[in-house]
Amino acid sequence: MNLREAFDPPVPAIVLAEGEFGEAGGKTAHGVVMHSDVFDVVAVVDSETVGETPAAVLDSPSAPDVPIVASVAEALEAAPAADVLVIGVAPAGGQLPDAWVRDIETGMEAGCDIASGLHTFLSDDEKWSSLAEACDVRLFDVRKPPASDWLRVADGSVDDVDADADVVLVLGTDCAVGKRTTTYELFAAAREMGRNAGWVATGQTGIMIGAHEGVVVDRVPSDFAAGVVEDLVASVAEDHGLVFVEGQASLTHRAYSGVTLSILHGAWPDAVVLADDPDRHHRAHFEQFDVDGVETERRLIEDLSDAAVAGISTWGAATEQARYDLPAANVYDDGGAAELLAAIDDVLAEERT
Amino acid sequence: MNLREAFDPPVPAIVLAEGEFGEAGGKTAHGVVMHSDVFDVVAVVDSETVGETPAAVLDSPSAPDVPIVASVAEALEAAPAADVLVIGVAPAGGQLPDAWVRDIETGMEAGCDIASGLHTFLSDDEKWSSLAEACDVRLFDVRKPPASDWLRVADGSVDDVDADADVVLVLGTDCAVGKRTTTYELFAAAREMGRNAGWVATGQTGIMIGAHEGVVVDRVPSDFAAGVVEDLVASVAEDHGLVFVEGQASLTHRAYSGVTLSILHGAWPDAVVLADDPDRHHRAHFEQFDVDGVETERRLIEDLSDAAVAGISTWGAATEQARYDLPAANVYDDGGAAELLAAIDDVLAEERT
Repeated sequence: MNLREAFDPPVPAIVLAEGEFGEAGGKTAHGVVMHSDVFDVVAVVDSETVGETPAAVLDSPSAPDVPIVASVAEALEAAPAADVLVIGVAPAGGQLPDAWVRDIETGMEAGCDIASGLHTFLSDDEKWSSLAEACDVRLFDVRKPPASDWLRVADGSVDDVDADADVVLVLGTDCAVGKRTTTYELFAAAREMGRNAGWVATGQTGIMIGAHEGVVVDRVPSDFAAGVVEDLVASVAEDHGLVFVEGQASLTHRAYSGVTLSILHGAWPDAVVLADDPDRHHRAHFEQFDVDGVETERRLIEDLSDAAVAGISTWGAATEQARYDLPAANVYDDGGAAELLAAIDDVLAEERT
Repeated sequence: MNLREAFDPPVPAIVLAEGEFGEAGGKTAHGVVMHSDVFDVVAVVDSETVGETPAAVLDSPSAPDVPIVASVAEALEAAPAADVLVIGVAPAGGQLPDAWVRDIETGMEAGCDIASGLHTFLSDDEKWSSLAEACDVRLFDVRKPPASDWLRVADGSVDDVDADADVVLVLGTDCAVGKRTTTYELFAAAREMGRNAGWVATGQTGIMIGAHEGVVVDRVPSDFAAGVVEDLVASVAEDHGLVFVEGQASLTHRAYSGVTLSILHGAWPDAVVLADDPDRHHRAHFEQFDVDGVETERRLIEDLSDAAVAGISTWGAATEQARYDLPAANVYDDGGAAELLAAIDDVLAEERT
């Protein structure tokens, strides 16, 4: 899915973040508010932080100064130009609360397209698809995997793009350790330097913030997970000389490692950046699993592919470099992404010789 | 899915193998004819080998001496006691040919339950589900993944079974290299020695021949692939002290490696047996990919899990042992499975000390 192409960016958008703005469950909403190249956020809906500012809630001075309100109706009053409603949170338990149903109806009736990160697909629901038709708006279910007749198994055809494009994959030592942010910041830094860069998302937030291609890989039947990534990389490589790919989880994560390896083998990168939180000893949401760490992950990546690990995108200080004898930078630091980009260029240059 | 429980084995069965009996596409049909603990095959339907014997077509003297006929109607004439029609092949292109439609209708109308290995699910099709109801027969779509509300991500709960049961996973250096056969033969040899063994299938043939639990893992959304294997292993370990698990593909197979790693991490085995064909240099159906081989696969398995590789199930001679300094046996040789079982016991004993 490519929302850059589906919209004429930047398009004014309301972000539904009910109950989770500033919380762990608001990850997609936060990504859209902070980073989207597609959506220009004009209001946030969250009854629990009404009246605060996004900068305060997200603890981030660069957050846009837009109102936080209690409903889509109020958001439309504050920002009548909104063209899209982004559903950036998922309800606990899966069932849509009545207030969200009213919010989505209100958005559609006001002519807003819907970009939904919900686990259940609005476009598969007769009620929502007929309302969308009646309101002449579009429904984008970003988690929805491609139709099965579009899916295929990987066949190594991504190797053909190598002649024309460099592929850089961002992996990590755990979930929620900055892979998507790193991918985006590397892409943005490359663009700033005038490079013809594009990027591939493998999760819903990346699609929402405007990756050049994206599929929520963990929803794809495992047979086709590598194939779908291969297709996405090949597609973005057609128009870009440098392709960044967002990875998921880690090769040593017992719950999700299959997703990770499918992405590594599907993207078949030239270089890998490894995202790491030096203070993480147990896995996020999986306290019972230890984090295996940079050395193990690096060894496995290099054993399972032809790529070299170029550097560490750390949540800690750049001094992590000394610990692993690998370039390290924090992409939240000024120039951090550019430093990692230089490390990537070193690895790519070495591979060419 | 557990067909042992669904039927009262052995149940007399007709196997539909149209166009593929003795061919690569007949893998599931062959497994059922040769090895099923659930189905007692009474006739095979394949218009291309009509009148030959299964022993001749499969080049296997131990194949049952049952008629090969051109249609289910003829099969029912030859073997009126049949209670099940097993669909052991998939049509090229996906669409059911008219002759197969008539065959399935004839089977249902004669009171046969249907065990289907088709990619499309009969039970999802109004036509077939109402006919099944009208005929009072059951439909088993063995490729169908569990309902999404049954699926969960892995959480390491399989570790709790370790105290009571030993888990042995059969992996391999490629697809179609004997993993399912090895798993079954190890299970059968253990049973013969009076061990309380059970086994878990991860592909349709294993389910058809009577695994104690099974799911076609490559059809499961990749997020849940490890979780579903964990559940299957835990379930079989409740009643069995020794659990064999069928693996898929290989960790170095760029198309399917995610499935392989999900099974390794979901089963979290105590020991691994590695199936290998010493003459295979390019991957089956993927000529463009080289086989990485025993040493690489062994190193990765032991790096990615706590299990030791106990031995090689080889398509070649037992002399492969010398090449890799690992016990090796061919399960088609007399006593081959028992030799591998002894190697597994050595590894398990070492882990206990």
